[in-house]
Amino acid sequence: MPQSATTPSAIDHPRFDVVAIGNAIVDVMAPASDDDIVRLGLAKGGMTLVDEGQAHALYAAMGPAREISGGSAANTLAGLAALGARCGFIGQVAEDQLGDVFAHDIRAGGIDFATPARNGQPATARCLIFVTPDGQRTMNTFLGASQFLPADALDETVIADAAVLYLEGYLWDPEEPRRAMRRAIATARAAGRKVAFTLSDSFVISRHGDDFRALIDAGEIDILFANEHELAALTGKDDFHEGIAALAPQIPTLVVTRSEKGAHAVSGGEHAMVAASPVAQVVDTTGAGDLFAAGFLFGHARGAPLETCLGLGAICAAEVISHYGARPEADLKALVAPLLAPLLG
Amino acid sequence: MPQSATTPSAIDHPRFDVVAIGNAIVDVMAPASDDDIVRLGLAKGGMTLVDEGQAHALYAAMGPAREISGGSAANTLAGLAALGARCGFIGQVAEDQLGDVFAHDIRAGGIDFATPARNGQPATARCLIFVTPDGQRTMNTFLGASQFLPADALDETVIADAAVLYLEGYLWDPEEPRRAMRRAIATARAAGRKVAFTLSDSFVISRHGDDFRALIDAGEIDILFANEHELAALTGKDDFHEGIAALAPQIPTLVVTRSEKGAHAVSGGEHAMVAASPVAQVVDTTGAGDLFAAGFLFGHARGAPLETCLGLGAICAAEVISHYGARPEADLKALVAPLLAPLLG
Repeated sequence: MPQSATTPSAIDHPRFDVVAIGNAIVDVMAPASDDDIVRLGLAKGGMTLVDEGQAHALYAAMGPAREISGGSAANTLAGLAALGARCGFIGQVAEDQLGDVFAHDIRAGGIDFATPARNGQPATARCLIFVTPDGQRTMNTFLGASQFLPADALDETVIADAAVLYLEGYLWDPEEPRRAMRRAIATARAAGRKVAFTLSDSFVISRHGDDFRALIDAGEIDILFANEHELAALTGKDDFHEGIAALAPQIPTLVVTRSEKGAHAVSGGEHAMVAASPVAQVVDTTGAGDLFAAGFLFGHARGAPLETCLGLGAICAAEVISHYGARPEADLKALVAPLLAPLLG
Repeated sequence: MPQSATTPSAIDHPRFDVVAIGNAIVDVMAPASDDDIVRLGLAKGGMTLVDEGQAHALYAAMGPAREISGGSAANTLAGLAALGARCGFIGQVAEDQLGDVFAHDIRAGGIDFATPARNGQPATARCLIFVTPDGQRTMNTFLGASQFLPADALDETVIADAAVLYLEGYLWDPEEPRRAMRRAIATARAAGRKVAFTLSDSFVISRHGDDFRALIDAGEIDILFANEHELAALTGKDDFHEGIAALAPQIPTLVVTRSEKGAHAVSGGEHAMVAASPVAQVVDTTGAGDLFAAGFLFGHARGAPLETCLGLGAICAAEVISHYGARPEADLKALVAPLLAPLLG
């Protein structure tokens, strides 16, 4: 007899390794000079939300660009799926050409994506990314349809059928998706699943830090991803090690990335560190944190030791910053094979 | 007193180096295996026209992709503008997101583009490009709005005000743009301008070879670009040198590209040859011929010797095949500077 997604045995062997809720965004990327960043008044290295008018004005000031699907959690899933994980995505596109592009790219990566496109305005989200010669990306996001993901669009059987629910902090900002994510957390926890969360950006913490601290206090977050700036913003501690010491006891697994300084994880009292993987040339740092999370979560899904999870994250991050775009291009499975071989042997 | 575009002095110092009429296409590019090409029944290395239904089916079979503006003549202009030439483009997009992308990218490259977007269906043209590990591109083009460029959309003052009118053979296939191009040729010639033509693909010659031979016989084409397959198709001579010998006396300047074997030009009885410029890795051959034409026409516009024109073409072609996409990414001016230095000195 075929099993439905809700039979106990399906719950014991969940259909998905990771289901994520995130922004459904197409990145519009172009090279820019440091002078351009200053002239346009952009916050270099940051992510700034812009309205449709600002997006049009910035686009007009941008050089010839290329369009590549993005979105933080969606990028993470693209990495996970490329590594061989079974993934599902929940996010809101509009019924338009960029929505078709986003949906195509995520499905073509082997990721389940069933959220219906939204009719009418606003258009599918886009992120205008200026990439400076140092590889740094400066992002300006028009959230468009993405911020209207309705809570009732969630398929709770899908969330209950994923070993890990992965949530993107960026999407905590708009109200409707925040409600959807709160409901998803409740569903995942009721089904005995793990909840992973990425803090995304310091501005999100400045607006919603109290929410995040409350979730952590309530034990709702099993795996937390942050970079060192976000760690400082969340804990109020400028010193990296003090921040780790303050937060780690509250989170079963804490992962903090530090760009070229590597990454640090604490899980059940065990500490592990990894250096950044070498890169011939940093072309575009867009997606570095997203792909680090992909590698880490893949190791986690396969029961790898903490240090191996970090190593997988570092390899995936190094791949994605070596080219334009936040989705992996090289064969990630082949890149991580040496690190996984001991586990398989 | 300000000069209008039609005053004699404007004609003596035309506003544009090159104005081109071509398809307004966004390329949708993804890596593919040779097995994919066979399984999907595609003609490897060729350009096949597909209808909207076929385009949807092929897109569904394609891996995660990236979108980069394309179109043969538009790519040539992108190269010319990057080199410092003054350019204008005439082509038809629809009023949709991909039309916005195309228009943005061409204008952001510094190219004049004033053809109004077309309302309603069909959508902006797209070319689904499968790139195999050998760098070969297999193109499947849905012409969409591009084929409805109306003859009355031509701004004849713009054409009269360009030293060279450049036409794309691909666009000879649909009826309305063909009429537009015939009118543009008449306008350019009446204004004493040169007409350059690229044959684009053997299938175009198999359908319209008689038209092209008639234009050549009538002395309407000043500069003709072909690859060796197109030369054979047009002349009926399989031997390269026989083909050159047959065609060269009929064309003031004939340029024939031969992929990794370099290129050959004949102008006013003078022959010149160039080897292909070295490339560390051929990533994607899309746009090789288009960028060769860009380099050649730039040299022509600056009065460079025939061999230098070929060398400029080879450098630009080598740049574009070293990365994904048919628009230049590196600083073409810097790449060609050593070749141009003797002219400036």
